[in-house]
Amino acid sequence: MRIALCGGTGDLGAGLALRLTRDSDHEVVIGSRDPEKARDRADEYEATLEDRGIEDKITGFANEMAADRADVVVLCVPAYHLADTIDTIAGSLDDTILVSPAVGMRNDEGTMTYNPPSAGSVTALAAGAAPDGVPVVGAFHNLAAGRLADLDADLGWHVLVVGHDDDAKATVETLADSVDGIRALDAGPLAVAPEVEGLTPLLITVAKNNDLHDLGVRFH
Amino acid sequence: MRIALCGGTGDLGAGLALRLTRDSDHEVVIGSRDPEKARDRADEYEATLEDRGIEDKITGFANEMAADRADVVVLCVPAYHLADTIDTIAGSLDDTILVSPAVGMRNDEGTMTYNPPSAGSVTALAAGAAPDGVPVVGAFHNLAAGRLADLDADLGWHVLVVGHDDDAKATVETLADSVDGIRALDAGPLAVAPEVEGLTPLLITVAKNNDLHDLGVRFH
Repeated sequence: MRIALCGGTGDLGAGLALRLTRDSDHEVVIGSRDPEKARDRADEYEATLEDRGIEDKITGFANEMAADRADVVVLCVPAYHLADTIDTIAGSLDDTILVSPAVGMRNDEGTMTYNPPSAGSVTALAAGAAPDGVPVVGAFHNLAAGRLADLDADLGWHVLVVGHDDDAKATVETLADSVDGIRALDAGPLAVAPEVEGLTPLLITVAKNNDLHDLGVRFH
Repeated sequence: MRIALCGGTGDLGAGLALRLTRDSDHEVVIGSRDPEKARDRADEYEATLEDRGIEDKITGFANEMAADRADVVVLCVPAYHLADTIDTIAGSLDDTILVSPAVGMRNDEGTMTYNPPSAGSVTALAAGAAPDGVPVVGAFHNLAAGRLADLDADLGWHVLVVGHDDDAKATVETLADSVDGIRALDAGPLAVAPEVEGLTPLLITVAKNNDLHDLGVRFH
């Protein structure tokens, strides 16, 4: 599959780009509002992989170009850029699955809590902003980006997948499963997105309070 | 310590009674609105342990008697009985820590979601119902009761502990850590209780959707 990481110049984009390229045959494209930044970051990811003997091509484009002909677009942008980013790429979406990993959080004197938008969840906000017929799947909310981008780190994490379109969810689950150390679990319909997104501030708070770092979650 | 499990005749009470008695030196007392039921269940728990060569005493009383002289009272009752149960035992609380493991959930055609009370969380509801000066700690929300009560099952779970009183939390963390296969993590103040409680419906939904059973959580 062709996977576009829109806003993929940050930590989550780096981790997904590096691991998907290393662990799978998927083609990874980096998107950014600034195409030069996208190309620079794509070159950096390529160089990181080349140091490990992996000679795959990663390209970088403006978001709307990156999304063009992508099978899956992962919206690696903060929640407050989500609707704008979807508007920007809307004309490029054709049989494309949108993946929303963003979370709304509130920081109250160092304690992170969940701060959902009025849509109920950030994933629901993305679903509301997406063009008709474009399925939106919530996934990758709970990945600690620093550890994800460290190719020496073992993960052992679950990725919780929510949404209304079962075929789209199955595709995203396959994508998540293609990363070593990640196993996707079906977390149900969009109504469960608040619980899934709420895990992210909890992981951050628990890490801080217990001198742990880069926590992910495992259900067992 | 003396641990009273008020409403401890159900699954969570069974699991905590059996494992705390087996794995620690804490004294376990079962409470119920019906003292005869409490005694019967205490006898059953004793018999289960005796079959495994463990000869500890577990006693059963009416809730207010069970709470008397307890260091920690775990309120193993549904959320809608929480305030009533606290009222019943209020006169027995003296330097006692109250532990709230209950969660509010909504079942929408088989999908469980979090359904907090107007207090914001069930733990906050308990804190509001407790007499002045009695610390309330949220813990044990995310334990799958069936697996907990199965003494042959390995756990490997984290217990997330929330509340305002650091000393009380430390005591409850020590209590949780005394169960083999459980490690307590400080999840912060009461404001984080919704995220902790919201994990429970998520665990149930994920288990159902992925043909898994009795899931708990591990952060790593």
